[in-house]
Amino acid sequence: MTFRYNNVYINATSTVAGPYEQKGPLKNYYDATYDDFYINMDTFEQAESKMIEDSVDILLSKIGKTKFDIDLFLSGDLLNQIASSSYAASRLGIPFMGVYNACATSVEGLIIGANMVENKQIKNCICAVSSHNNAAEKQFRYPVEYGGPKPKTATFTTTGSASAYLSSNKEQIKVDSSTVGSVVDLGIKDVYHMGAVMAPAAADTIFKHLRDTKREIGYYDLILTGDLGVYGRDILKEYMKTEYGIELKNYNDTACMIYDREKQPVYAGGSGPACAPLVTYSYILNKMKKKEYHRILLVATGALHSPTMVNQKLSIPAIAHAISLEVVE
Amino acid sequence: MTFRYNNVYINATSTVAGPYEQKGPLKNYYDATYDDFYINMDTFEQAESKMIEDSVDILLSKIGKTKFDIDLFLSGDLLNQIASSSYAASRLGIPFMGVYNACATSVEGLIIGANMVENKQIKNCICAVSSHNNAAEKQFRYPVEYGGPKPKTATFTTTGSASAYLSSNKEQIKVDSSTVGSVVDLGIKDVYHMGAVMAPAAADTIFKHLRDTKREIGYYDLILTGDLGVYGRDILKEYMKTEYGIELKNYNDTACMIYDREKQPVYAGGSGPACAPLVTYSYILNKMKKKEYHRILLVATGALHSPTMVNQKLSIPAIAHAISLEVVE
Repeated sequence: MTFRYNNVYINATSTVAGPYEQKGPLKNYYDATYDDFYINMDTFEQAESKMIEDSVDILLSKIGKTKFDIDLFLSGDLLNQIASSSYAASRLGIPFMGVYNACATSVEGLIIGANMVENKQIKNCICAVSSHNNAAEKQFRYPVEYGGPKPKTATFTTTGSASAYLSSNKEQIKVDSSTVGSVVDLGIKDVYHMGAVMAPAAADTIFKHLRDTKREIGYYDLILTGDLGVYGRDILKEYMKTEYGIELKNYNDTACMIYDREKQPVYAGGSGPACAPLVTYSYILNKMKKKEYHRILLVATGALHSPTMVNQKLSIPAIAHAISLEVVE
Repeated sequence: MTFRYNNVYINATSTVAGPYEQKGPLKNYYDATYDDFYINMDTFEQAESKMIEDSVDILLSKIGKTKFDIDLFLSGDLLNQIASSSYAASRLGIPFMGVYNACATSVEGLIIGANMVENKQIKNCICAVSSHNNAAEKQFRYPVEYGGPKPKTATFTTTGSASAYLSSNKEQIKVDSSTVGSVVDLGIKDVYHMGAVMAPAAADTIFKHLRDTKREIGYYDLILTGDLGVYGRDILKEYMKTEYGIELKNYNDTACMIYDREKQPVYAGGSGPACAPLVTYSYILNKMKKKEYHRILLVATGALHSPTMVNQKLSIPAIAHAISLEVVE
């Protein structure tokens, strides 16, 4: 399902990031970073929720508005019951809709928000996501204190929150179109190889986006997937070529950009709902504003991984949502 | 945030329900019921996901369409990572957006879908939810096999799935307007008294809906909250009167309608995302089609309860979303 927009802009974004991101190659692009995983809160989960609040506070100050000026808050995260988002929404008090498509949540929120802004159902919205490495490890695998080793195909959940302000005020970054993905499940059960789980979903969504918009892959200066990691990235390239006959040019994956894999113990790269927007809302939009990129397609990828279902020997479904951003000339 | 619609109809609904609902007062209104909690699946969680599929299959047959005719599937549920919905979406293959606002998820999905149908961004969508008593108890509290006693203010999670087909084809049930709620948290930490947790959120949303639509409470033949239960229902009535000066007339709560509390061991009544739509999509829409009700306001209430956050001594935030349905004369 592909939507076109004539009337939606990303007027501002905000990114806050954790201690590993703070030492990564994009460290100078975030609005704020934290030196530890607790950020003065009692628990990792409360820290994650606090990051959303901090990100939204920074965003509101950038646009010179208060929470009372915002029509809708769309947010989701990896915690069970998207608790980080719910508790942040509680303190913000903006009309709230919780969304969840794992690490594709950021673009899911953008699509719902953009659709409502396009037809003036809302005048503006804030779309947020978060993830927290230690909170996610504890919930999905084991507490990091256990020190369990992982295979090299594992990814490292990013710690941070990113938010975007959408409205119809014409500014430099236009939301051009979006594609809602379908769930794809090729039968993979390996929770340490999410790149392989998600690559087919990314391929499916990229293919449908190009088909629906009647565009060639070269239309975009950059195709950017969310968190496939170095192995998933290669799988996607191979898979797109063999299954769809499409050669992925001008392609990168935010999981491969957010850390320095040579120096940081992050396995195949970053992951988590915050990964794609942390990179896109900081480094990539900066490049777009300098007109180094004119048109990008952000494809956030989500492994709809449920530990309960995986323990029951089911495979892991995946989804990818795409959003096309353009620089207004 | 209140939306008005001129172009959105609920053309069909479908309800499938579990063994307790099958013995309740609305037993003759469901499309299908199951005699046990496993419904031929290996686990409760897989049974919950299967119920969504069954509900959608019945819905598709009612409207004479296949999954290929549907533009968007919006679904959410109580399982961690909304796994029931994700796995059902995987088998359905319809473009999917996962939503989560606990037991307010049904109306959240309807609002997102209605907003997109209103402006012809999509031609149609299916909005589904599910809940499963044993799966929810296991995840949020203790496995039911432990036989733990509960206080009388506890509610009994409904087992079932409900789905609705929305399009702009003019039929008898029109979606008139909707109101997205904000999160309300009055500091309650009692996980066995969700009615008290959610009543203030319901009051806030009802008040804002009436204010935004410039309507009096008497405009509606029926105001229907989701799952407050008998104690929460009384709290809401009292709270609306004292805090907002509004006397709730023509009011009921689906939690108080779905079971026979005299004969069934359901404490204060039903709950779960399926509760409100199981009652509304079967019994209430039936009454609307017979013109016994002309205008109803369905206010789905959600306790954004996270066991992790409650174990950390945080209070439970709540939300309520409202949707107004009208019979086309």
